[in-house]
Amino acid sequence: MQNISFLREEFIQYLNAKVSVKEPANLYEPMVYILDQGGKRLRPVLVLMAAEIFDCPYQKALDAALAIEIFHNFSLVHDDIMDDAPLRRGKETVHEKWDVNTGILSGDAMLINAYQLFENYEGEVFRELAKLFSKTAIEVCEGQQYDIDFETRDNVTISDYLKMIEYKTAVLVGASLQMGAIVAKASSSCKKAIYEYGRLLGIAFQLQDDYLDAFGDPDTFGKQVGGDIIENKKTFLYLKTLEAANENEARQLEHLYTISPADNSGKIEAVKNLFESSGAAEITRREIERYTRKAFLILDKIDLPEAKKEPLRKFGEMLMERQV
Amino acid sequence: MQNISFLREEFIQYLNAKVSVKEPANLYEPMVYILDQGGKRLRPVLVLMAAEIFDCPYQKALDAALAIEIFHNFSLVHDDIMDDAPLRRGKETVHEKWDVNTGILSGDAMLINAYQLFENYEGEVFRELAKLFSKTAIEVCEGQQYDIDFETRDNVTISDYLKMIEYKTAVLVGASLQMGAIVAKASSSCKKAIYEYGRLLGIAFQLQDDYLDAFGDPDTFGKQVGGDIIENKKTFLYLKTLEAANENEARQLEHLYTISPADNSGKIEAVKNLFESSGAAEITRREIERYTRKAFLILDKIDLPEAKKEPLRKFGEMLMERQV
Repeated sequence: MQNISFLREEFIQYLNAKVSVKEPANLYEPMVYILDQGGKRLRPVLVLMAAEIFDCPYQKALDAALAIEIFHNFSLVHDDIMDDAPLRRGKETVHEKWDVNTGILSGDAMLINAYQLFENYEGEVFRELAKLFSKTAIEVCEGQQYDIDFETRDNVTISDYLKMIEYKTAVLVGASLQMGAIVAKASSSCKKAIYEYGRLLGIAFQLQDDYLDAFGDPDTFGKQVGGDIIENKKTFLYLKTLEAANENEARQLEHLYTISPADNSGKIEAVKNLFESSGAAEITRREIERYTRKAFLILDKIDLPEAKKEPLRKFGEMLMERQV
Repeated sequence: MQNISFLREEFIQYLNAKVSVKEPANLYEPMVYILDQGGKRLRPVLVLMAAEIFDCPYQKALDAALAIEIFHNFSLVHDDIMDDAPLRRGKETVHEKWDVNTGILSGDAMLINAYQLFENYEGEVFRELAKLFSKTAIEVCEGQQYDIDFETRDNVTISDYLKMIEYKTAVLVGASLQMGAIVAKASSSCKKAIYEYGRLLGIAFQLQDDYLDAFGDPDTFGKQVGGDIIENKKTFLYLKTLEAANENEARQLEHLYTISPADNSGKIEAVKNLFESSGAAEITRREIERYTRKAFLILDKIDLPEAKKEPLRKFGEMLMERQV
């Protein structure tokens, strides 16, 4: 079994060899630009790891891994337009560096290119990959739509929120793992279980990301701490506080989410205090723990020698070990 | 063999039964809105016709036809954003009725939905359809990119232009026909020939569209006559005039393409005179004729009884019979 950083390096080499600017350059330069920017390459590494776990050399899964990475970056290009985001991974976003039209069209081409990579697989493997990919891609679009809808809805429930993060983030983690298993021709119960491991871990990860956005260490958390609070985002912490708090605290929180002070530090502190005093912060920590445990339980049950499963367990632990 | 209007009606009924608003409604309402608007349904009808020609009941090709129609409408939604077009088929465009973000995301979902329709086909048929679809879809994106690039390039050649209209328009006509043939499991030489018939007819049609934009009858041509001239579009007529005209006429045309008078009628007349006096209009008429003849020649050679090919010939004649 290859280790994570080896697989990441192999993937990057493959990406560099496969993705280059063709004519018309204005269509393909943005694609190369965003794919060259790095990022953690978590999803493609998961594809490769899953193939290896089911006794298939990772090399056979490189095209599926590349499809997943291109799709992920397609969704970033289009989401950044929708969010009007100027920066991504510390660099100008595609629509900032070029323009919105270039972002739209290059994104479209990336989505199609992702599908084309499955053509390197035969028969039933091709069909299964393409089918899983379409199902996942449409869920990611639906997740993004729910996220947009939530901004203007005032009746978002906890279950709505969980469905949104599941679709927007978690299903792609599950699909990455399942794609490796499909390439490796694993049994259908193994394919199902490994998807489920990824999906549950993806939900836990996103809940943790929401939690760290408020309570993370500014020195180690990659993004601006308090960003969600500044943007009045209806995260799990926010929705749980409205549910768990008393009437008075709930009204306070709702009020804080209507104001946009020049200096946000007071607002951030007040909101965080409500997150804690209501008990929502504690509930969130427990939910993260619960989803993580559920994920590892699924992993335990997969019918494979423990040594085979070790890398996936380590990956999950690494992902979840980011501390407050 | 079913006639065209019967197949169109059957297709519309299928579309109405299959395409409906699901949750999240903001993602799917724009899709239903644009697909309900009508249009000529030329491409899906071609899919159904091609299936029938190769002895396959059109019902089996309905999903492929729907995929083509959804893809075509996806490209309209994204193109309308890029062109900042307020109207399409006399109604508000999606990004006007909703907003740009809705247009981007609904378009993405439509592209993915188109792929999903191929899942209704088995084995090799599924693979061939998905592969042809991806190849065609990427060419359509490349064609759109070339079209955008041409606006700011001053060295566009006739051959660049022909490639642009081939990719942006003609390949989807060829692919529509080939998809019907794929579903019908036609021989590979038949699949190739019918694609070629569609591709050549598509180029002829687009050249004719350019020609009629200048010389069409305002009462029967669907769009504003002179629209391309007002927008200084580098069409076949324009590029051919620069090539065929003497130095003096060429400079006149280039000058006319730098001005934007409040009343365009004088500019339109002057440009049309140059199109005629340079001989470019005549050359264009001959080119349309030449591509149409080439298309019909390909049709002649397809190894099928003449009666089988008759509907396709009629379709081509109908398409090309629009007069000046």
